[in-house]
Amino acid sequence: MAEIIPLNDAAHQTDNALNKLHQAFKAELAAVEREIDVHMKSAAEMIPQISSHIVGAGGKRLRPLLTLSAARLTGYGGKHHITLAAAVEFMHTATLLHDDVVDGSDMRRGQATARKLWGNPASVLVGDFLLGQAFQMMVAAKNLPALDILSKAAAMIAEGEVMQLVAMNKTQTTEDRYLQIIEAKTAVLFAAATEVGGMISDADTTTTQTLRAYGRNLGLAFQLVDDVLDYGGVSRVLGKNTGEDFAEGKVTLPVILAVHRGAEVDRAFWHDAVTNPKDNADKFDKAVDLLTKTHALEDTRARAAHYGERAKDALGLFEDNEMRALLLGLVDFCIARAY
Amino acid sequence: MAEIIPLNDAAHQTDNALNKLHQAFKAELAAVEREIDVHMKSAAEMIPQISSHIVGAGGKRLRPLLTLSAARLTGYGGKHHITLAAAVEFMHTATLLHDDVVDGSDMRRGQATARKLWGNPASVLVGDFLLGQAFQMMVAAKNLPALDILSKAAAMIAEGEVMQLVAMNKTQTTEDRYLQIIEAKTAVLFAAATEVGGMISDADTTTTQTLRAYGRNLGLAFQLVDDVLDYGGVSRVLGKNTGEDFAEGKVTLPVILAVHRGAEVDRAFWHDAVTNPKDNADKFDKAVDLLTKTHALEDTRARAAHYGERAKDALGLFEDNEMRALLLGLVDFCIARAY
Repeated sequence: MAEIIPLNDAAHQTDNALNKLHQAFKAELAAVEREIDVHMKSAAEMIPQISSHIVGAGGKRLRPLLTLSAARLTGYGGKHHITLAAAVEFMHTATLLHDDVVDGSDMRRGQATARKLWGNPASVLVGDFLLGQAFQMMVAAKNLPALDILSKAAAMIAEGEVMQLVAMNKTQTTEDRYLQIIEAKTAVLFAAATEVGGMISDADTTTTQTLRAYGRNLGLAFQLVDDVLDYGGVSRVLGKNTGEDFAEGKVTLPVILAVHRGAEVDRAFWHDAVTNPKDNADKFDKAVDLLTKTHALEDTRARAAHYGERAKDALGLFEDNEMRALLLGLVDFCIARAY
Repeated sequence: MAEIIPLNDAAHQTDNALNKLHQAFKAELAAVEREIDVHMKSAAEMIPQISSHIVGAGGKRLRPLLTLSAARLTGYGGKHHITLAAAVEFMHTATLLHDDVVDGSDMRRGQATARKLWGNPASVLVGDFLLGQAFQMMVAAKNLPALDILSKAAAMIAEGEVMQLVAMNKTQTTEDRYLQIIEAKTAVLFAAATEVGGMISDADTTTTQTLRAYGRNLGLAFQLVDDVLDYGGVSRVLGKNTGEDFAEGKVTLPVILAVHRGAEVDRAFWHDAVTNPKDNADKFDKAVDLLTKTHALEDTRARAAHYGERAKDALGLFEDNEMRALLLGLVDFCIARAY
């Protein structure tokens, strides 16, 4: 499977919104990285090894960027946005480590997972360590309402994963149920990351709720686009990262739509692929065919675009400035990735 | 293996120090249980199921009692000690769930573990959920220094477990290294649980450090006695809970002492039992024999007694009242369990 990068694709241009955002927060992101490095240190060697494998593995730092952006948008003048941004990334990383154990995943973003390299026990414990460190960083930011939001998020993420665990092998999962799951496992952290950026500025409740709504809807869009990308995106560009969900028999929205719209024989195919994913590598082309035939990929993208629009509208309350423009652009960038 | 309860044993008398402590905090403990129940609730059914299996499984509530005791000892008049005590118990419970996954344990306190009943993935996630809930409860107590202590403890517990993971299959682990491990995985939470009880009373640093020292030394003593009990205690009373460490090939202080004091042939026995614990059930009697011959059990108890004395001396700064007497009695109770 060759990786083809369409040159005209907004998501792949070097001046895309994500890169612009990285540029706008160059100094702050460098400070976040330093904060991350400091908190990965431990006398137990395995901890920095595993942590840097996963924290360092080309993450987009999307969640920390949301915290930094919300802080700037609300005129924050202190230093605690750095600490909170790093804490948010640690929470995310801890989740990834545990997810891979829960799903038995061997690959993530085209790389061997920590659990594949160091085993499940180490992945569980290093995840716990990072979560503990995340809370310490949050405490250092000395803002109880922000701590409340983020600790609530931690519990909800786990709750979402438990729900997914039960739904995972059920092709009859409804779209509503699936949205509930990704709300908890993805959107809640996006929402919290954005909200706390406004909270440390002592922004009023309308403002923090607006920021939360932006983050939440962006998170939903982001996850749905990710689901589409796992099948090569709407334009079916297969790369080294595609097929991971299918290989694990994961029920995502594209699959749910294909099941609901498919013929009886197609449903049998999905049921088989989901309940017994062992040989799914051979079935991937057929899966993509069925998804295309039922318009499941383009319609999942359309659902994502719906949440993207809601995210953009949420920012309508803010004055039209450069920071707002960057956040609006980020939504379009996330949706454009689906192609 | 029959369970024989020696009637003259201080640890088994109905008016023992632990029961007295339970009696002294009857109302507060009931409030802690209510707090625990409320925070186990979730729309994901598996969460209350698994949580109540482990939270409800006859725990002694030792750690919450430390928080309540320290609060009373320092004259606390509010309600936050209840919330913190419940949070501490949740942290402990989350650790147990993850430990059993890490160690692949099928039995705990003579009962099937959650991972045995519901699988590793659910145990990891429910542990994460409980940890998230613990942090939410801590936030509700609105005390940043206490939050700092407890979040630091969370990271250190995981660190200790990682260290144990590496040491687990090494019979050459030194006593010093082992103490470092149990310091992190057990004593740190005992220390934090006690310290935060004083912190919410706005006690001065000398007082909170004293409380911390009590908790820490009690924790070390407690863990060492637990290690002895797993081999039936000094008087070799085998019950349904004995042999769990040995069955998993865990290197604990009794084993370390037996290895250091044993003949070459005995070391080979331990090396084999630890690296390949599959058939350890058949070797248990031999193991207990070697531990007895090398005085490993009674000397581990003596090490525990040393920390017990330090815990009691730490309380010397407090005036002689009923609460202090109960905490002194608790140390003796913990040590007496070793018989």
